[in-house]
Amino acid sequence: MRLSQNVIKTIKTVPKEEQAINAQLLIRAGFVHKEMAGAYSYLPLGLAVIENIKSILREEMNGLGAAEVLMSSLQPAETWKETGRWDDEVVDVWFKSMLKNGTQIGFGWTHEEPFMQLISRQVQSYRDLPLALYQFQTKFRNELRAKSGVMRGREFIMKDLYYFTRNQQELDAFYAQVEAAYLRIFERVGLGDCTFLTFASGGAFTQFSHEFQTVTQSGEDTIYLNKARRLAVNQEIYSDDVLAQLQLDKAELEEVRAAEVGNIFNFGSSKGEQMRVFFSDESGQRQPVYLSSYGIGVSRLMGVIAEHYHDEKGLVWPAAVAPALVYLLAINSKKSIQATDELYNILTERGVAVIYDDRDVRPGEKFADADLMGIPWRVVVSGPISDHETYEIKSRTETTLNHLKRDDLVRQLTGIEKQ
Amino acid sequence: MRLSQNVIKTIKTVPKEEQAINAQLLIRAGFVHKEMAGAYSYLPLGLAVIENIKSILREEMNGLGAAEVLMSSLQPAETWKETGRWDDEVVDVWFKSMLKNGTQIGFGWTHEEPFMQLISRQVQSYRDLPLALYQFQTKFRNELRAKSGVMRGREFIMKDLYYFTRNQQELDAFYAQVEAAYLRIFERVGLGDCTFLTFASGGAFTQFSHEFQTVTQSGEDTIYLNKARRLAVNQEIYSDDVLAQLQLDKAELEEVRAAEVGNIFNFGSSKGEQMRVFFSDESGQRQPVYLSSYGIGVSRLMGVIAEHYHDEKGLVWPAAVAPALVYLLAINSKKSIQATDELYNILTERGVAVIYDDRDVRPGEKFADADLMGIPWRVVVSGPISDHETYEIKSRTETTLNHLKRDDLVRQLTGIEKQ
Repeated sequence: MRLSQNVIKTIKTVPKEEQAINAQLLIRAGFVHKEMAGAYSYLPLGLAVIENIKSILREEMNGLGAAEVLMSSLQPAETWKETGRWDDEVVDVWFKSMLKNGTQIGFGWTHEEPFMQLISRQVQSYRDLPLALYQFQTKFRNELRAKSGVMRGREFIMKDLYYFTRNQQELDAFYAQVEAAYLRIFERVGLGDCTFLTFASGGAFTQFSHEFQTVTQSGEDTIYLNKARRLAVNQEIYSDDVLAQLQLDKAELEEVRAAEVGNIFNFGSSKGEQMRVFFSDESGQRQPVYLSSYGIGVSRLMGVIAEHYHDEKGLVWPAAVAPALVYLLAINSKKSIQATDELYNILTERGVAVIYDDRDVRPGEKFADADLMGIPWRVVVSGPISDHETYEIKSRTETTLNHLKRDDLVRQLTGIEKQ
Repeated sequence: MRLSQNVIKTIKTVPKEEQAINAQLLIRAGFVHKEMAGAYSYLPLGLAVIENIKSILREEMNGLGAAEVLMSSLQPAETWKETGRWDDEVVDVWFKSMLKNGTQIGFGWTHEEPFMQLISRQVQSYRDLPLALYQFQTKFRNELRAKSGVMRGREFIMKDLYYFTRNQQELDAFYAQVEAAYLRIFERVGLGDCTFLTFASGGAFTQFSHEFQTVTQSGEDTIYLNKARRLAVNQEIYSDDVLAQLQLDKAELEEVRAAEVGNIFNFGSSKGEQMRVFFSDESGQRQPVYLSSYGIGVSRLMGVIAEHYHDEKGLVWPAAVAPALVYLLAINSKKSIQATDELYNILTERGVAVIYDDRDVRPGEKFADADLMGIPWRVVVSGPISDHETYEIKSRTETTLNHLKRDDLVRQLTGIEKQ
């Protein structure tokens, strides 16, 4: 995309009340716009990051055999009264409103109940199970405070996966598959090294739940980490008893701040029983459907990546999620425009996403924006270039300038796998 | 996708209160699930139709030079008080709720105001304009009644495009471009013949607005149509005066029911003035930004297509929006399974979307589901097939059975352009 023709614009001033580093950087770099505390709009580059993360998640979800759907945000009270989760005393993040006839409705903050209600119509027999469904959906949560930028919004994009099955063994087998898929996902978005499977409190149905926590100063959680075993324990359940149960040695644990990037809930047969969602088993007996759910906050993940990958000059996106692979800029632009246009056309034709800075501004401003936006490769053209001459290319993470002939440059950039 | 492994399931019973033909068909065919009056969830086949419509819209929007963004649903009151549209007396479709600190918030039912607020930070000079931005976004509207299925939801998916410019001439030029793009869009989704540019009331800023109306019995509007000139007048402005102004002859107009599938609003400089969004023109003078907005309801369009394209057996999707091109089914399945599997693999490898009915059910049920789901081509395999034998292929819209050798069949199906 050509910057001269686009709405993308870095800005100098960030809303005063914005405390989170991720949001400060994303706003300055023109990736998001703050609408109110906890609600952000995604501008073209921010939306590109979101879509890249979604593509990775979609591949992994389809790989698990799950089918994509999209549930409504509007929720009738009845569905949630069956499990007690309509009550504001039980769930304190509901946004509720009212139809014109006085009926109260809610805006979905998660979707276990509507999914159970949906499949109750589809599932009669054991032959109809197991079923895996996922969605990318905008969740609304009436958080008391919203100070973590896009890491914890009142409105956010979530990937949520629901698995419906016949018994605990099938649930456990799938649970293990998702655990592996989640580790691949965090690896692919660039957070593999610093993300750890973490034991947390399990709620009413299981002793523990599993979270995935990314170590970062801006995290809202404290975890006790055994790096060698790639395991951690959330502070909320940290005790001598729990450590003994998990066979973890206190001396080998490190206390660190971390941000939850994924979670896994095992509801067992509880929702099936509460909502009377049954199937007939092989012997014709009525059995409750088992449920597990698996969340990853898509917009939250963008925030955590921004927290993890930045330096004093701005964002530093891993190639797999970067909104473009190349930041192409011409200096001395009257002389270099032809060579730059040609390179832009060649790269875009080959499917390389390029931000072409063709604006009539000082070179210093272009260099600064390339760094602030955090595009993996910067290519500079400073004059007319004959076949024997070279282009300057630099990685966002290194200071070395390399010089490549056009063919070599194109070969290198088209060869960079999205991880 | 293999039906045996999927949640897709046609159902026999539709919620009693569901009156709209589009929703009855979409529910029976397993495309959508009704959560409450005016709120539907999209199951895999329904979501595929939505994504196909979005792809067509995205191509046309990008062709207009517009950039894709995604605005928040949550709306602070301040943004809307500037134009008077926060007031429930002025706008009677707001869903509102409250933050924990008592601040009232709304859920976006359109986005002119937040877009104007967004660009006020991006636009200083005439060089920053024009700008075109669009989004696919979930809108919430607290409709008094919601009886038209997915054609008029309390929650629905909309494509909305906003154009910000310097003056009325630039606005008019883009307006004409969008009009042409909209006609292409309706042509591409299969509604070209029955969709007409329609004059409607213009609101405070212009005498007329433009709508696109699709002729259908289930429409909520009455229009007066001149088919030869492909123009119509909405009943709301139908008068001798208006006809004279538009040079339409009463005798040549036909009164028909129609559904609005797209609209164009010309706000002129009104929002720029109300919200104090100004730019400096060439001579340094402060000028208000001009705004026009252009909507197409994505989920509504799915409903209108369902209303237009169905018969007594079920849905009849045009290929461009169909959730799959081929419904492949084996009868006498023990003998035919190998040939069917092979064909399925060949077609999916070549990028043809196939619903493979590999369920262990009666052939009659498979035929009925193929018709109900409205998949453009049905291919039947009834035994082992040698290289010299043929496959049975039938179009959803015809009764003739054709018989083709595998290579010819594959060639025909891979040659069918998505329009």
